[in-house]
Amino acid sequence: MDRIDVPSDVVIRRLPLYARSLRYLLDEGIHSVSSQELGERINVTAAQIRKDLSYFGEFGKQGIGYDVEKLLNHIERILGLTQRWPVVLIGVGYLGQAIARYDGFNNQGLHMVGLFDSDPAKIGQLVGELPILAYARLHDVIREQHVRLAIIAVPATYAQAVADMLIESGVRAILNYAPVILQTPDDVWVRYIDPVAVLHSMTYYLAREGGEIS
Amino acid sequence: MDRIDVPSDVVIRRLPLYARSLRYLLDEGIHSVSSQELGERINVTAAQIRKDLSYFGEFGKQGIGYDVEKLLNHIERILGLTQRWPVVLIGVGYLGQAIARYDGFNNQGLHMVGLFDSDPAKIGQLVGELPILAYARLHDVIREQHVRLAIIAVPATYAQAVADMLIESGVRAILNYAPVILQTPDDVWVRYIDPVAVLHSMTYYLAREGGEIS
Repeated sequence: MDRIDVPSDVVIRRLPLYARSLRYLLDEGIHSVSSQELGERINVTAAQIRKDLSYFGEFGKQGIGYDVEKLLNHIERILGLTQRWPVVLIGVGYLGQAIARYDGFNNQGLHMVGLFDSDPAKIGQLVGELPILAYARLHDVIREQHVRLAIIAVPATYAQAVADMLIESGVRAILNYAPVILQTPDDVWVRYIDPVAVLHSMTYYLAREGGEIS
Repeated sequence: MDRIDVPSDVVIRRLPLYARSLRYLLDEGIHSVSSQELGERINVTAAQIRKDLSYFGEFGKQGIGYDVEKLLNHIERILGLTQRWPVVLIGVGYLGQAIARYDGFNNQGLHMVGLFDSDPAKIGQLVGELPILAYARLHDVIREQHVRLAIIAVPATYAQAVADMLIESGVRAILNYAPVILQTPDDVWVRYIDPVAVLHSMTYYLAREGGEIS
């Protein structure tokens, strides 16, 4: 069965969670899983999983479930994770340090290739194995290493200027930790990591539960 | 006009972004804004903003726009941010340090009141003004300070056990940085900060643009 409809972004955002769960299963030595079991691990219904995967082909067999390794490989291929994507990080404050040291960004298709900061005192310092470079080097590193993915961890006031630089140099997808919405061309992907906004969306519910607001 | 329908979670998640934009406007000395102008700052249509706000009453006047300060105060009241919510953080590695030092968690309705780590070598160290405490103190701090919000920044393998402890002590909303889906009771809110999954959802699109996958 060929499906003509295109998966929505919500579906695409769930695929990395499926892949991660499958990796955990493999680590646990589990080689076969039903959509039911997989769903319970990620709080998604079995029907949703089957529907999401149906956009990309036929997986699993009725009554047998999915071959964990095969499905994982397939999802990684769908997500483009069979290659390693070079990533640059701009802003190496406390948050940037934590990002630079997090091995999730040097794994599973990602590869941190450059750290940049505007503070002259930081230039040349090593974070893990990578030296912090000056902004003046940004363009060349992006070009030479064919970087299309970047992480912004600078203060809000500088984030737009940094994004402009990145895009001008060829970056096409930005993960932005700065608490500001970026203005970017239509062919650039931007996603936000915004923990304070997320907490604020939960206080809404807590305030109602607690009777502070009705 | 009283509306009976309840705003969806997607609406609630946008409210903090409106509030932040309004705060920026106030900082810039701007006291009146149209839904058009506000929308352009956060990549939301003017119609969407008007619809979102209509769940909570009547704001703005036709042709005049919103009074920035009034609307901000109103949204903060809706989000429960006129009080300060005590927050605890579990896990003070590189990421936890960055979180503990980020003033976004000590502002606008949030107030970091306790840092916890399982590593005996860290206990007693100060991060900013707060000492790192042992897990043994968790229950008492949560009870005494009436904490209902917690941030988890421990490795994936410990996140579920930490969540269980938090919930048993009275926490009702968790911001989870660990790359694992938590199993929690229905009356507990959990949100995830998952930058690697977010990057992986962008490589999907980049791989197709670049011709690596069709």
